[in-house]
This record gives sequence, C-alpha cells and structure tokens, in this order.
Amino acid sequence: MLPATPLNLAAAFDRVGEYFSPKVVGQVNDQLLKVAKLKGEFVWHAHDGEDELFYIVKGKLEIAFEAGTVILGEGDFMTVPRGVRHKPHAAEECWVLLIEPASTKHTGDEVTPMTRSLEEQMS
Amino acid sequence: MLPATPLNLAAAFDRVGEYFSPKVVGQVNDQLLKVAKLKGEFVWHAHDGEDELFYIVKGKLEIAFEAGTVILGEGDFMTVPRGVRHKPHAAEECWVLLIEPASTKHTGDEVTPMTRSLEEQMS
Repeated sequence: MLPATPLNLAAAFDRVGEYFSPKVVGQVNDQLLKVAKLKGEFVWHAHDGEDELFYIVKGKLEIAFEAGTVILGEGDFMTVPRGVRHKPHAAEECWVLLIEPASTKHTGDEVTPMTRSLEEQMS
Repeated sequence: MLPATPLNLAAAFDRVGEYFSPKVVGQVNDQLLKVAKLKGEFVWHAHDGEDELFYIVKGKLEIAFEAGTVILGEGDFMTVPRGVRHKPHAAEECWVLLIEPASTKHTGDEVTPMTRSLEEQMS
C-alpha cells in the first residue's frame, strides 16, 4: 500500500463552507495544514505559544498588527510569530493555507461567535 | 516595526541554483520551508524521525516508494511519513516547496555527492 495520497491544494477548498472556518487537510510532523476562505474582518487575537503561517492561494489578505498592516497577494506567505497580536481582513474572498500546531486556538484567548474548535476544523 | 515580511513563493526560487539543492526560505515553529528545483533522479533515502511535505509549485514530480510510485502535479501536496524510503524523480524541471524539521538530513543516512548540509541549505 502506498504510504500517502497526494491532494490538490485548490481542490481542498471544496471542503470549506463558511468564511473564517478552517478545515484540516493535512499534517506534517506536529503541524496541521488548514484551508480557509476569508471575507471581511476577523478578530484581534494572538497565539501565545504558536507561530502561524499564512500562504495566499487566491485573492489578497491584509493582516493588521499593532505596528502596521501587511498586505499579502496571491502566492505570498508569511509567518506570524507566536505572541504577536494580529487581525486578518479580506475585502474580497481570499483563500488561505494555514500551517500551525494542533494546539493552536483559532482566536487565541478571545472567544467569539467566530471561534471554531479543532473538532469543528477536523469535521 | 512589523513582526514579519511576506515573501512570494515563486520569487523565492530565484535563490535556487543547482538541482536537488534546497534553500531555506522560511520557518513556522520548528519546521523549515525550503524551495528546490528538481530535474532527474534523486537517491533512495528515508528520514527516520521526520515527516517531509512536498508541495509542487511548478511541473510534475514522481515519488517512488517500495510499494509503488505516486505522481504529483502542479498544486498537489503530500506528506511522506517518517521512516518511509522514497526516491523523487522529475523528468522535466520541477519546483517544489518542502516542509520538514531542521533536524532532517537531506538524503537520510545515505551520503552521496548530491547530499547538502543544512548550512548549505541556509546559504
């Protein structure tokens, strides 16, 4: 039996329903790969113990930091270091690959109606 | 000061010279992001303690396993589990993003003229 099956990254977004609700589509070591469609404004939050990588598959994403805003276009990636408060914002629909450990809480210590549990992200 | 700077994944391949010689272009937690251009046949090897993710940015990659061969096209990704012997092969030039821990040895316990140290991958 083959040890693994390839998955197409763009096709993996078929699993995504609502905005800001990531779905786990892969794993490498202790890091999960998640896909999410974003549109509109997320909440300010930080992940105290986890870096979070954003890779833009489609569209454009602004990430606000306390020191200013970064704009990521299609094909760009950036790691938000652990402990750094950030707020993603997408004026139009944006498709994002996230890489982060299983321990990462979706909205850090903030709990809002947008917060999704890991169980929801695995479903 | 902004906590991070975005990098374009395709542009990151400008850093790559020879085939099968990965360059580190990013990090998330304890995992390194490496870009590599592949053409031709690599060596059979395994990474005893590390999973290795392949994401195809351009072209097509075959990965041979003892159980058979997997073909990855542009936009496909796959995690080769730790301990599994594999041999990448690209008939034409292929651009790959690799995600693996810093401890990963390029050719596992095989040492060949193709083997690159982490120091060489950071340069």
